[in-house]
Amino acid sequence: MTVGTGMSIVTCDIAVSLDGFAAGPHPTRELPFGDVVGTGEVLHSWMFDHHADDHRQEIAAILDAGAYVMGRGMFSPDTGPWDLDWTGWWGDEPPYRAPVLVLTHHERAPLTLGETTFHFVTGGLEDAMARARHAAGDRPVSVAGGAGLVNQCLRAGVIDELRLHVVPAVLDVPGATRLFDGVGRHDLEAVGARWTPEVTHLTYRRRAD
Amino acid sequence: MTVGTGMSIVTCDIAVSLDGFAAGPHPTRELPFGDVVGTGEVLHSWMFDHHADDHRQEIAAILDAGAYVMGRGMFSPDTGPWDLDWTGWWGDEPPYRAPVLVLTHHERAPLTLGETTFHFVTGGLEDAMARARHAAGDRPVSVAGGAGLVNQCLRAGVIDELRLHVVPAVLDVPGATRLFDGVGRHDLEAVGARWTPEVTHLTYRRRAD
Repeated sequence: MTVGTGMSIVTCDIAVSLDGFAAGPHPTRELPFGDVVGTGEVLHSWMFDHHADDHRQEIAAILDAGAYVMGRGMFSPDTGPWDLDWTGWWGDEPPYRAPVLVLTHHERAPLTLGETTFHFVTGGLEDAMARARHAAGDRPVSVAGGAGLVNQCLRAGVIDELRLHVVPAVLDVPGATRLFDGVGRHDLEAVGARWTPEVTHLTYRRRAD
Repeated sequence: MTVGTGMSIVTCDIAVSLDGFAAGPHPTRELPFGDVVGTGEVLHSWMFDHHADDHRQEIAAILDAGAYVMGRGMFSPDTGPWDLDWTGWWGDEPPYRAPVLVLTHHERAPLTLGETTFHFVTGGLEDAMARARHAAGDRPVSVAGGAGLVNQCLRAGVIDELRLHVVPAVLDVPGATRLFDGVGRHDLEAVGARWTPEVTHLTYRRRAD
């Protein structure tokens, strides 16, 4: 095992509306980003289709991680025990191509889809982060969302670099989780911003203690 | 009276934390931006002191309006009838140098401080906007805040250009008004962004109907 600079950094990318929503209130198997009309398209179309070329560097940064930590809601809208017949929204070739640690209360054997293996972690955030750091080695660990997991990570102080992808819409979704709700006070370092018509990319780092 | 392009545009500048707070929950006469330690300084220091030079164009744009509409909380933390012995936070030379229409439930005679006259409007937002447009002529009308008034204006659809000045801090202030709370869905046009270490300036326009 190569040991380089020590612990890898923890990054977090999340696409949000101007008012901090990353999804509607009730994602379903058919509508991963919630039942607000167009929520998913408004938040994520910059990553797909012809827009993706304009955001190549940000997409590459997201996919540069050596492991990912993901909230269960990013993998499945179902609650309770797993329905093993349904393998999530990510299709046969999820983009991660690295271990993805999915936080859940329900045990499940690892699931490999294409070059990505989802591991289901029931030991809480600390356990998931430890396993992600181990898997990532010197490469970044990425917190993949959703907003609830990002808030949990902010409260726990584990995010080194927060990359917000802010779309020019106010969604105002009652009942959905809003980024930064209840995370406490954080003074960050503004590292940079890149404006595009579809999304403004804002990068923040945790200030040195 | 000169009639140029017709109605002046309505702009709105507001300095907010990453989570959309523009003040703490309990402003006082001594602490205009609320009782969260440093709230006002975190949000507004870029406008003052040595930082102001770095934000000359944004400050000039704020002060370019021909009239301002302001929530009562931006003028006084007191509720109820006016205490005429106290003339607000703005000192002898408020920066506006134009009519400022302050929305309030309590009548008060106009108050001139330096080159700025505050007019106290009890007829609601529509009345205040009409008077501001009349006073501004062809120049912009500026919605000066706070967050409650901005939300009211967004709900009413009167803001043409929204200029957010986002400081790199999460304040998470329970009980304070959060920008965009309850304003409904808005799809905006992202016009531009300018990054600085102290604040990122983001400009949005209402999309043509």
